[in-house]
Amino acid sequence: MELPSRYLREAVEQLSTLPGIGKRTALRLVLDILKRPEDEVARFSNAFMTLKSEVKTCQKCGNLSDSIICSICADPKRDHQTVCVVEDLRDILAIEATTMYNGVYHVLGGVISPMDGIGPEELNISALLDKIKTDAVNEVILALNTSMEGDTTNFYLYKKIQPFNIKVTTITRGISVGAELHYADEISLGRSLSQRIPFETTFEF
Amino acid sequence: MELPSRYLREAVEQLSTLPGIGKRTALRLVLDILKRPEDEVARFSNAFMTLKSEVKTCQKCGNLSDSIICSICADPKRDHQTVCVVEDLRDILAIEATTMYNGVYHVLGGVISPMDGIGPEELNISALLDKIKTDAVNEVILALNTSMEGDTTNFYLYKKIQPFNIKVTTITRGISVGAELHYADEISLGRSLSQRIPFETTFEF
Repeated sequence: MELPSRYLREAVEQLSTLPGIGKRTALRLVLDILKRPEDEVARFSNAFMTLKSEVKTCQKCGNLSDSIICSICADPKRDHQTVCVVEDLRDILAIEATTMYNGVYHVLGGVISPMDGIGPEELNISALLDKIKTDAVNEVILALNTSMEGDTTNFYLYKKIQPFNIKVTTITRGISVGAELHYADEISLGRSLSQRIPFETTFEF
Repeated sequence: MELPSRYLREAVEQLSTLPGIGKRTALRLVLDILKRPEDEVARFSNAFMTLKSEVKTCQKCGNLSDSIICSICADPKRDHQTVCVVEDLRDILAIEATTMYNGVYHVLGGVISPMDGIGPEELNISALLDKIKTDAVNEVILALNTSMEGDTTNFYLYKKIQPFNIKVTTITRGISVGAELHYADEISLGRSLSQRIPFETTFEF
């Protein structure tokens, strides 16, 4: 695809660096941008520079924030003795949307993945261990995604947290609420069975 | 979805102005951008400003270009008496990729679509009529997409070009080369039949 302008080529190339956006889609998007008035394009363009220069990482939990301590870590009404470990910001948004959790978070920034060159040192793990000590944390909830890498990371964290002699839990997995058994995938249904809980504990919902 | 940073919000909002990109996808893309080094983000961001300020519209055909006359219009080896009318740049790329066309193009910039507030005045039509006069054009090929709007525009152009008493053609439509008849859609197969051509004319391919 030989584009008739190098500025067009550059814009297409830059947009197609985004995950899941190919050259054809990028061209369609670039033609859309080109049709906009100059001030709109400036606003579009500036958003990314400002993003990079202004967004901060919360010093306590690693969440993205406009200040050095995020609003959740700064909230005295939250339970700072309970820490939920997640991969990234989107998991926090998902958990917050349930309105079922009042503890704080810890964002790892990924999971251990030797294939991608991500070892424990690349993740926000030592800050978690520091927090356990200084904030007298009494429960760590592991809420990483279930994948080979997620499971490895869970186990690594478990081993690191064990010496502190605090509760380490993980979110339950099973078939979705409302899902029909005969449509469920075998792994989820299997977990639902093997991790079955006393019926009385479901009364509180 | 309450994002913890307004700069993050702004970047997500800007990306989701692109057609086909929702808020969730935008957030995924923004988190990817945020992980990049500052110079890469600057290059990404600048690409769109430069795009808007540097890309020009060819004065002869309306194609996008780095100069005021595009490379196709400036090429003396092309047949300037044959003009192929297309909707936008992507159609030129598609036709150029066939290497079967040596004429020049004329980019309308859209099709007549009263529902979207696009009338003939919004399109690059008067420049086409001027070109027919000044360049002694002897054939106009209509290659707009087949839609209600495309057909309307074809007919409008045909009426406007008719007084010049030159050949007006349109690209053939039919089932794709290699497509099996029993899988083809009825409209394409119908056109293939109703617009059938003498068998001898296919020898030249």
